[in-house]
Amino acid sequence: MNSKHKLCMIPGPVEFHEDVLTSMSTLATSHVSPSFIPIFGEVIELLRKIFCTEKSQPFVVSGSGTLGWDMVASNLIESDEDVLVLNTGYFGDSFADCLQTYGVKVTQVKADIGDRPSLEEIRQALTTKKFKAITITHVDTSTGVLSDIKAISNLVQQISPETLVIVDGVCSVGSEEIRMDEWNIDIVLTASQKALGVPPGLCILIASERAMNVFHNRETPIKSYYASWLMNSYESRKGMYFATPPVQLILALHTSLKQINSRPLELRFQQHKEVSNRIKNSLEELGLKFVPKHREIAANGMTAVYYPEGVKATDLIPKVAEQGVVIAGGLHKVIGPKYFRVGHMGISVTEPERKHVEKTIEALRGNLKDLGCK
Amino acid sequence: MNSKHKLCMIPGPVEFHEDVLTSMSTLATSHVSPSFIPIFGEVIELLRKIFCTEKSQPFVVSGSGTLGWDMVASNLIESDEDVLVLNTGYFGDSFADCLQTYGVKVTQVKADIGDRPSLEEIRQALTTKKFKAITITHVDTSTGVLSDIKAISNLVQQISPETLVIVDGVCSVGSEEIRMDEWNIDIVLTASQKALGVPPGLCILIASERAMNVFHNRETPIKSYYASWLMNSYESRKGMYFATPPVQLILALHTSLKQINSRPLELRFQQHKEVSNRIKNSLEELGLKFVPKHREIAANGMTAVYYPEGVKATDLIPKVAEQGVVIAGGLHKVIGPKYFRVGHMGISVTEPERKHVEKTIEALRGNLKDLGCK
Repeated sequence: MNSKHKLCMIPGPVEFHEDVLTSMSTLATSHVSPSFIPIFGEVIELLRKIFCTEKSQPFVVSGSGTLGWDMVASNLIESDEDVLVLNTGYFGDSFADCLQTYGVKVTQVKADIGDRPSLEEIRQALTTKKFKAITITHVDTSTGVLSDIKAISNLVQQISPETLVIVDGVCSVGSEEIRMDEWNIDIVLTASQKALGVPPGLCILIASERAMNVFHNRETPIKSYYASWLMNSYESRKGMYFATPPVQLILALHTSLKQINSRPLELRFQQHKEVSNRIKNSLEELGLKFVPKHREIAANGMTAVYYPEGVKATDLIPKVAEQGVVIAGGLHKVIGPKYFRVGHMGISVTEPERKHVEKTIEALRGNLKDLGCK
Repeated sequence: MNSKHKLCMIPGPVEFHEDVLTSMSTLATSHVSPSFIPIFGEVIELLRKIFCTEKSQPFVVSGSGTLGWDMVASNLIESDEDVLVLNTGYFGDSFADCLQTYGVKVTQVKADIGDRPSLEEIRQALTTKKFKAITITHVDTSTGVLSDIKAISNLVQQISPETLVIVDGVCSVGSEEIRMDEWNIDIVLTASQKALGVPPGLCILIASERAMNVFHNRETPIKSYYASWLMNSYESRKGMYFATPPVQLILALHTSLKQINSRPLELRFQQHKEVSNRIKNSLEELGLKFVPKHREIAANGMTAVYYPEGVKATDLIPKVAEQGVVIAGGLHKVIGPKYFRVGHMGISVTEPERKHVEKTIEALRGNLKDLGCK
């Protein structure tokens, strides 16, 4: 497979480091073995660093990123409580759907496609009723729109400080700055296959002390108590059984987190910004228009961009793939066929010697020129 | 790690085939790539063969086996409906807990430790009220007790044919015979890391046409509709997005299912019986007593056995590990410290040339003799 491997430059899964893949193929290991317990314990500690938090509680469970929505809905919100969902695309729709499935009363602030709700709109929405929580999609993978979670959380502190601030960071953790403690974020949920650089299959959720208190003070008994015990148990380097954790994926996460934490996070975010600008500049030079309305609200780990006039997905994506680079089509319900997406996260960004970005820009530019771009 | 690898002879995770581990380390692959879609499609078809069913709907999702309980509770049972839980150990307790978390009214038929409810007890319970479903732990990993799902399902057909028959097959699928269609089973749920021989991280659930009808006729909208569409989409060799599937684990499952289906399933089950008997005979010869009250109700993929009088877990398990074989301690809430468990599933059974069973018996016998067994 390697010889004909195509670079996976979609907004997740991203390219994986060789050492991460080696961890994925670790021989059978008991989930309570003396070799695995300290590694899982260290994963929990390393995650706190990634999220810039001292005391928040990480959870690492088998699941897709979207399972994080279910974890929020089933553990923190009672049915009939109100939640404010900020919607910047497909994943806002879906988070709202998920909450409603659990009986939660959802109010949405929906931005136009490519835009994000203004702080003024959010301020107004927050004053209409008492919200148990506000959810923000940090980067909506369907539009590439980046939300300003720092400013929004700050606003929530002013207007409705009891409201829990919940961030869907599936497409942002590891590529966008998140300072949980400093910014008063209560929950960040994410998945392994984006900027954390691990194959898909892990849902990672981290909860502030305040969120953990909400969870512990619930009236209804919930399964996740066990998950909380489990994490504490592994962190204190003791094995415990609740459900069998995905050993190989956790070993792979450990490998990746050690790599990520071996360099300053600031440098990592800076690199993602620089690469994002390079890719966006090269597309802009070809006359292309981005889905996000302004560069300032565009994600740094991915780019969503409209095809040139008259060009379809099938004109571009297979051609780029022929040159060894996989990019993604559109996902948004309304504009799906009109745009494509490029992922630029993880080792493709932080290890420039791999030349992933050059190869991607080259394949895009060549084909777009063939399609009539100047 | 390989040079000092200890054989993982616990009741899951089990030893993995080299080709399965190679699949686990597949380079980054898009979940909608033309190379992945047909493989996921074939996985769904291969699963029907494993469960001996023509038309049941398999679901393959990121998760632990226990997520299957949540899938049952949230998709098939309305809160306030009655479910009869047959309890043969820890996993019966936990399945009941999980259902109750969702508001389901649970009635349990609990067997004594090491026993299973008699058909007469089940018959009586079934006549007390109208049950939406009955749950059976096929093999309770905490006791090694095997339930007779064929006889129980037959009884349900006679007494309460509308009741859905739900089998927790986490520790049985791939090592014990399951004939979904012939035996009128509605749901079997399982995990990847047991006899299916794939690292942990996949929850596999298969639903009969009848169960799918119950699910489709629900009043409340549920997320799993998407999962159903997703499976149908991949099976018809089209990509679709709902949540990112765990590509590498699914590739590994594909490799393992192809291996399993390359030989008659009957032979596979026969081999598991033979190996189980060999291990159990060798322990019996040493004077040990099994947790299951009779050999006829003992699982074929694992053995739960009491320590000899005066022997503790720490006397035996680390010593056996020193000889390169990992076995598991007890898990049952009442008798946990009094017994140990050995797994004998998957390639350790079907590929005798690996000598896993011999090595395990040798390590056990040597150490048990040192501890005073005759």
